[in-house]
Amino acid sequence: MSDSIVDSAGQGMSKRELLAMIGKTAGASAMYMAMAGMEQAQASNFKGPVKLEGGAKGASVLILGAGVAGMTSALELSKAGYKVQVLEYQDRIGGRSWTLSGGTTYTELGGATQTCQFAPGNYINPGPWRIPWHHHGLIHYCHELGVELEPFMQVNYNAYVHNTKAFGGKPQRFRHVQADYFGYVSELLSKSVKQGALNDAVTKEDAEMLLESLRGFGALDRNMRYVKGMPSSGRRGYDKEPGGGLSAVPEPSDPIAFSELMQSGLWRSIAGNLQWDHEFTIFQPVGGMIQVGKAFERAAGHLVRKNSKVTSIQQNEKGVVVTYKDTKTGEVMKAAADYCICTIPLPILAQIDMNVGGELASAIRAVPYSTSVKVGLEFKRRFWEQDDKIYGGITYTDLPNSQISYPSSRYGAKGPGVLLGCYTGGAAGYELTASTPEERVAKVLEWGSQIHPQYKDEFMNGSSVAWHRIPWTLGCFGTWTEQTRADHYKNLCQMDGRIMLAGEHASYYGGWQEGGITSAIDTITRLHQRVMAG
Amino acid sequence: MSDSIVDSAGQGMSKRELLAMIGKTAGASAMYMAMAGMEQAQASNFKGPVKLEGGAKGASVLILGAGVAGMTSALELSKAGYKVQVLEYQDRIGGRSWTLSGGTTYTELGGATQTCQFAPGNYINPGPWRIPWHHHGLIHYCHELGVELEPFMQVNYNAYVHNTKAFGGKPQRFRHVQADYFGYVSELLSKSVKQGALNDAVTKEDAEMLLESLRGFGALDRNMRYVKGMPSSGRRGYDKEPGGGLSAVPEPSDPIAFSELMQSGLWRSIAGNLQWDHEFTIFQPVGGMIQVGKAFERAAGHLVRKNSKVTSIQQNEKGVVVTYKDTKTGEVMKAAADYCICTIPLPILAQIDMNVGGELASAIRAVPYSTSVKVGLEFKRRFWEQDDKIYGGITYTDLPNSQISYPSSRYGAKGPGVLLGCYTGGAAGYELTASTPEERVAKVLEWGSQIHPQYKDEFMNGSSVAWHRIPWTLGCFGTWTEQTRADHYKNLCQMDGRIMLAGEHASYYGGWQEGGITSAIDTITRLHQRVMAG
Repeated sequence: MSDSIVDSAGQGMSKRELLAMIGKTAGASAMYMAMAGMEQAQASNFKGPVKLEGGAKGASVLILGAGVAGMTSALELSKAGYKVQVLEYQDRIGGRSWTLSGGTTYTELGGATQTCQFAPGNYINPGPWRIPWHHHGLIHYCHELGVELEPFMQVNYNAYVHNTKAFGGKPQRFRHVQADYFGYVSELLSKSVKQGALNDAVTKEDAEMLLESLRGFGALDRNMRYVKGMPSSGRRGYDKEPGGGLSAVPEPSDPIAFSELMQSGLWRSIAGNLQWDHEFTIFQPVGGMIQVGKAFERAAGHLVRKNSKVTSIQQNEKGVVVTYKDTKTGEVMKAAADYCICTIPLPILAQIDMNVGGELASAIRAVPYSTSVKVGLEFKRRFWEQDDKIYGGITYTDLPNSQISYPSSRYGAKGPGVLLGCYTGGAAGYELTASTPEERVAKVLEWGSQIHPQYKDEFMNGSSVAWHRIPWTLGCFGTWTEQTRADHYKNLCQMDGRIMLAGEHASYYGGWQEGGITSAIDTITRLHQRVMAG
Repeated sequence: MSDSIVDSAGQGMSKRELLAMIGKTAGASAMYMAMAGMEQAQASNFKGPVKLEGGAKGASVLILGAGVAGMTSALELSKAGYKVQVLEYQDRIGGRSWTLSGGTTYTELGGATQTCQFAPGNYINPGPWRIPWHHHGLIHYCHELGVELEPFMQVNYNAYVHNTKAFGGKPQRFRHVQADYFGYVSELLSKSVKQGALNDAVTKEDAEMLLESLRGFGALDRNMRYVKGMPSSGRRGYDKEPGGGLSAVPEPSDPIAFSELMQSGLWRSIAGNLQWDHEFTIFQPVGGMIQVGKAFERAAGHLVRKNSKVTSIQQNEKGVVVTYKDTKTGEVMKAAADYCICTIPLPILAQIDMNVGGELASAIRAVPYSTSVKVGLEFKRRFWEQDDKIYGGITYTDLPNSQISYPSSRYGAKGPGVLLGCYTGGAAGYELTASTPEERVAKVLEWGSQIHPQYKDEFMNGSSVAWHRIPWTLGCFGTWTEQTRADHYKNLCQMDGRIMLAGEHASYYGGWQEGGITSAIDTITRLHQRVMAG
């Protein structure tokens, strides 16, 4: 299975969707072969602050696109002495590092315009929304440029996991599923060890330590069994919770039966939380991912010309000339430079007139983009905290919305609250993309109310982003396969005359800002080497 | 094993210490029997806002101690119409809900006075420091009284686990240990299942699901083995991390050998993170636990007389008279009320003249207090973030300091940083308690520098709290055994004439603020029932 799925894995549900589809069509075995392949390549090779030494020899660079890849390039090249200009289609710096909050207005392909109605302080990040500890490049720029980070609550033991075909459709608490899975796995393995079934694989000394470890890991009882009692309830929780005074004594809870747990498939949620890009500590910017764009704007916004739609990119042996249209005035203009770094998303770039070699041209057309859709819902109150005792984290479901993510900020706030009611891709992404914004919200409300019945009484308004309809990307992020990587990845990244591509699509991090940043650094480093050599 | 250990478990290393001691003296089997017993009783039975209905019939209540138990009692009883006065020994409300920050001055038994030198924004919480999601009572008051909560980073996959006798004393990353443990457990169990060793315990249908689940959970390869490769590195991390452009391709890392992992004992850190009171989401107050005391002061501080040292508690059939001394003026005074709720820690209370029955008097003397010690260290910079890429979370070690906890706030801040360099109990707690404050800091620096060599160059100053030397508690929290629970717990909680005890010691939550709060609510509810009945 390809590392392209890694990319969507990074963004959560699109991977799940895809796995579910593989599972349905090819069976469980294929699904796990896919999962194994997906667990690739998620850390940064950022090596610390960029140093482009030796001067720029008067060279100029035209950068297309003011997302994190373009802005990283602009900032570092200008610091190194290059003459830099950035052309940006939007009236905003940051690209997909974006936040929907009250007043945000945007128009999708087809003409539907949404104006987000969220109350002050409420938001969703329709694009990237989390920053794992190992995204060293992005964290470096956040610290350097003044983006305050706070923890993103990736795992919440009290959130739900939900399979419409298990437990009569009733959502289960993650803590029940994980504690019981760990308990039964430990009990079964200890049974095998004690029966001698693993005598050829494990020495006697190691077997003793393994048994010790399993008792603790699985919360087994004195007979190495996972059963109702204080050890198991010390993981999964109690029927009657302990307290103080004369009403203090707790009562243990019943584990889920082994067979019911296995057949529910809800154990899938455990592995998802363990993957490299979901490991604690994970961050989000205080105030939304748009803060990343704002920080780059403070640092290098003076280099950017906004509202500039690129229509042609032409090079010869002396330089590059880009034709663009001012989207406010309609005026058509040209910009020229010695080199061009192009970060325009591939579905857009494929439509722009550009004289590059056949290999790069083929690569640009080889990478389909994810169909991810996110829908934010505002409710009159944070019922998930007040009623369900869920503070941040993610509920997973086999319904088409795939997940519900609760805000990782302003815990306990009174007044309206916003959750992410849907983050999906694959077939469900197509379905929602084909719907109107109003239909999307109605569908997501209907799905989510099977988990949170409070939805119907508490709903206020919703906003959605279906990335295939966003005119400046036409998709959420590039999805590679093993085959397209082998055929096109190097061609996409290699310098073509005086033109180089950068962005998450030119990385092993598709869909992550870290991909854009490490791609930009790799690109400007190679560009600088060429200038120095020349 | 007793649930008293549950209590210290709640506070982290004291449990580990105790387990380690049990392990050393009684062997591994006893240790795991102890662990099983410890996994008890950690949730709240708080049922929502307290309602004491029907009026107070003019009754008055004298409350001794202005910690969370006393203040909860004062707030709720005064709202219900009772005449309430609180006597507090300290010049501060909040008791052990305390924070050391720049300028905090305190004198311990023996006369040593420390003045904390931390830079603005840096602090440690010497007493309670975390609030699990299921501490419903405390979270209720935080939300109600305006204490802002932020996540406490209980688990950080990139923090260290350290055994001086394994890996040549070199600390290991938690992610390596956990990923490899999960991988080997999954590989071994799948091997047993495929060999048919569990055919009597698991149906064929369930075995198929189990194998599927193990591949995902363990990050096994296509042959159901846990080996070096992209699946395992997608959990534990890479030798060369992925990136962008032409330098993007990652290289996988080598798992720890099974036998080395087993014999290291470092797998113990996994179970500790899974217990009920360490589950995500866990909070801390923004600005330190002292904010809880400040919030109660805003709500009910007008009821409190500070600097009042209780010397005698006497009751007859008409009421209670308490003698106390103003610690500033030396003046001796009396306060009287119909009832008394006493939250004074038991080691102090045992020394106060008090006419209660023999059963309560015995109970007061039956509960020893934990020897916990915490030491905060300030360094010139946050090297654990900048060098080690550890953002919050806890490193565990078999050295006497037991753990190092990195701050869960102000991630990425420049300038001096403070970490908790030691949180220990048991024998190590006694050793540090017997040391001077200067010696404590020197020892903790020496231990911690085996994990973070940066300690020596970056150290600025340190502050310690050895709870057995704190004159207003003489210990950190009450530690019960099964036997003392059976003999004394009910007697401690039952009303004795007109006197009732409340506090974490009168709960199944020793060492947690939630114990004090649920104990207070149980107590005032029973008091109110008596007043209504009378």
